[in-house]
Amino acid sequence: MFTLPQKESRMTTACPGSDSIQGLPGNKGDGLERECSRKPDQKALKLYGVGDPTATFSSSSPYLSSRGSVIKWFWDLAEEGYRTYHMDEYDEDKNPSGIINLGTSENKLCFDLLSRRLSQSDMLQVEPSLLQYPDWRGHPFLREEVARFLSFYCRSPAPLKPENVVVLNGCASLFSALATVLCEAGEAFLIPAPYYGAITQHVYLYGNVRLVCVYLDSEVTGLETRPFQLTVEKLEMALQGANSEGVKVKGLILINPQNPLGDVYSPGELQEYLEFAKRHELHVMMDEVYMLSVFEESAGYCSVLSLERLPDPQRTHVMWAASKDFGMSGLRFGTLYTENQDVATAVASLCRYHGLSGLVQYQMAQLLRDRDWINQVYLPENHARLKAAHTYVSEDLRALGIPFVSHGAGFFIWVDLRKYLPEATFEEEVLLWRRFLENKVLLSFGKAFECKEPGWFRLVFSDKTPRLRLGMQRVRQVLEGQPQLAEGAPPHQIQEPQGPHR
Amino acid sequence: MFTLPQKESRMTTACPGSDSIQGLPGNKGDGLERECSRKPDQKALKLYGVGDPTATFSSSSPYLSSRGSVIKWFWDLAEEGYRTYHMDEYDEDKNPSGIINLGTSENKLCFDLLSRRLSQSDMLQVEPSLLQYPDWRGHPFLREEVARFLSFYCRSPAPLKPENVVVLNGCASLFSALATVLCEAGEAFLIPAPYYGAITQHVYLYGNVRLVCVYLDSEVTGLETRPFQLTVEKLEMALQGANSEGVKVKGLILINPQNPLGDVYSPGELQEYLEFAKRHELHVMMDEVYMLSVFEESAGYCSVLSLERLPDPQRTHVMWAASKDFGMSGLRFGTLYTENQDVATAVASLCRYHGLSGLVQYQMAQLLRDRDWINQVYLPENHARLKAAHTYVSEDLRALGIPFVSHGAGFFIWVDLRKYLPEATFEEEVLLWRRFLENKVLLSFGKAFECKEPGWFRLVFSDKTPRLRLGMQRVRQVLEGQPQLAEGAPPHQIQEPQGPHR
Repeated sequence: MFTLPQKESRMTTACPGSDSIQGLPGNKGDGLERECSRKPDQKALKLYGVGDPTATFSSSSPYLSSRGSVIKWFWDLAEEGYRTYHMDEYDEDKNPSGIINLGTSENKLCFDLLSRRLSQSDMLQVEPSLLQYPDWRGHPFLREEVARFLSFYCRSPAPLKPENVVVLNGCASLFSALATVLCEAGEAFLIPAPYYGAITQHVYLYGNVRLVCVYLDSEVTGLETRPFQLTVEKLEMALQGANSEGVKVKGLILINPQNPLGDVYSPGELQEYLEFAKRHELHVMMDEVYMLSVFEESAGYCSVLSLERLPDPQRTHVMWAASKDFGMSGLRFGTLYTENQDVATAVASLCRYHGLSGLVQYQMAQLLRDRDWINQVYLPENHARLKAAHTYVSEDLRALGIPFVSHGAGFFIWVDLRKYLPEATFEEEVLLWRRFLENKVLLSFGKAFECKEPGWFRLVFSDKTPRLRLGMQRVRQVLEGQPQLAEGAPPHQIQEPQGPHR
Repeated sequence: MFTLPQKESRMTTACPGSDSIQGLPGNKGDGLERECSRKPDQKALKLYGVGDPTATFSSSSPYLSSRGSVIKWFWDLAEEGYRTYHMDEYDEDKNPSGIINLGTSENKLCFDLLSRRLSQSDMLQVEPSLLQYPDWRGHPFLREEVARFLSFYCRSPAPLKPENVVVLNGCASLFSALATVLCEAGEAFLIPAPYYGAITQHVYLYGNVRLVCVYLDSEVTGLETRPFQLTVEKLEMALQGANSEGVKVKGLILINPQNPLGDVYSPGELQEYLEFAKRHELHVMMDEVYMLSVFEESAGYCSVLSLERLPDPQRTHVMWAASKDFGMSGLRFGTLYTENQDVATAVASLCRYHGLSGLVQYQMAQLLRDRDWINQVYLPENHARLKAAHTYVSEDLRALGIPFVSHGAGFFIWVDLRKYLPEATFEEEVLLWRRFLENKVLLSFGKAFECKEPGWFRLVFSDKTPRLRLGMQRVRQVLEGQPQLAEGAPPHQIQEPQGPHR
């Protein structure tokens, strides 16, 4: 989801609080990343940044409250992306010159396996109890299954407990609920940047909670370090920075495997980050939504739930969902695991607004308990397909001489296109992004993830080969300076939007 | 959902902002009404009342924000109800001396029809588009079906439009989203009382919006009037009262057919209420969630969407859901119909947190489009069963000489037990309610609905005859002064809770 940048914002240098949105309106439900620009008179980048998600907001509606107008404005930005992409979606037969989407983080490689499994007769159970008011934490049979599932796949040293599980309709809801019950309005969470930008909205729209960026950079400063490495020193600096601006920080959000970096934290790193959080009495929201999408064994992924001892178990809250690991973002299933019963209860109290159908709860339980299918059919095939797609795209990038960051996890490659920018500015980043779009391939640019270095792009590879091939061809054309506008492309696809906030 | 009243709050006289909760945690998903008591030093009842949902709140958690602690507190009250009722749920074979639930507004009469229809093979469709990020307003195929369905059953003068439809996971979410986008924190909606008390939470927990009660009473003041009649004069008084207390009122909530009264507004009344709202530029949230549960033709129900001309279409927002009319509170399907695109868009922007599974969206579309089944099988049978159950209970009440209000709509009878209170106080109301519970039948008492007259109870009749029979026997035993504690009842069922907020 994205909006075309506005002419008047070309001079922008930074965009704290910008967000990206996955999961677009539209028949196919695709999502793109959107870009948020910032007024020229705003502060330049620092090593920390307290985001104001509404920095560019101006319009309002006579029918809505001020917060309602801001909430609508976020949608309008998304709608702009919807109109641009979905008006010209690629289709092999019907619209071969349409836009190829390498921007949305969805796994489109395993719909055949999923459809087959979910269509089996054991999935359609309609008992009266499933049609009546649910336990808002999730039906007990499902929470038991989730606890067993997480115990096994997170390799927990002891069995996880169903009473620590809360089930809801996706991790977006979980971020919203956690923000609201952990923070007062105006308080903040730390988050290493670049990060999956939609979290900005998740914590802000209902909860009015902000994000303080812990900016990472690509520079490698020593042996056994890697680009965009998170360190405790950086966490400390960001926290102090926020404090010095009078912003109360209540927690730390960690995404592991990381989106958009594909980075995987080692057990030692995890322990350090958790110790840092404990020192400062920060809650840790651990987003492990890609935990089964680690397709390279060597990545060495481990869940926090595998740790022998959590430094601060009462402030450690783990999220997982079916969106990524089972390629079902449309199923709307997410779960919280926390030992803190105050937090579990407060989130459950909000679950009335995030509940999912009893019928879907039954299906999820069936799926999670089918260990044979998961272990012998789904996961091996999914990993093999992810690996093949990753190999295809990464070899293409190598052939082009393009550096990238990738660690064998997730659906995306973090691509360094800095050498293609005439100047190291976000303006040039957006211009390059627009040239891709004009050549009918959609990527996500780094500013949508709060990356502090202009020129990085996220490229999603978890799609079928024909689309990858065509998408990479179009990327190559642009980078080789030979963009060839596909025939029959309607001119409005590349126009600037008319209004300041469209 | 309910909490046992606390000893220290016996002196309470009023409870603005108390709430009732439907849809309880627990295997069977039942919900009961809960009671909220108020400190003795608080203001006495007036003709209007600005509710403070946290009037009795005191505890807090070191891990939660202050709002998080309040949110958790609401759940704890509910949990108290859960423990009390679900620890001793009636079962014909396994627990015949368990509690009969005539407190939760669910229709348990048609699970056979629903199970049969929902188990048909056309219900299990697993297309990739249903597994991908959805249109957050709802899949277009579903919104088209909802528009057609509402056009037909609301008897709209012209076809309703899919672009005015937003789909989400139940009307609770809709109240939450509307409160947030229409009001600033601390602003209010008017609502005629008695009303379905859970709305207090729906608008407060995320939105921090309050309710201003328009208190109705049972006195009949003239020809062609009825008990608890809503008049424009009362609306005007309540609005002025709120204004005089410095509370900004942004809208009016109307429930039609009404819960708990079962009242049905005439077209003329509707028009008057809507004109009142227009004069004051108030949004109208029209909750029509029982619109197909009018089992007496003579009730003369009409939807606002049937009106030839809405006085203020940009401020009129209609809600409907599958919970009541299709007896599927566990399916979590609700919808908004509004011509106001600012409102529709702002609600859609929050729908990321209220989304429902693509698979359920498909099932709902299949159900709504099956007009033959709805018209020829489901509705006639549902209405016949509701009518029979209503006849059974109302005849029992007549035989007991108990007055009641009932209009041939909804699942409940509003019962006047004032003559059974030694004194006309809410304390006595609660004592009577407890005697019912001790005799293993659960009703909802009027204070949970903000009724201003002590002694009214809501009695749900939409259940199978054996349970109704036993429930009514137990009611009769209490009223005839012969409560017989069922054998084997564990003594903790009737104990006072230990802590101040359990």
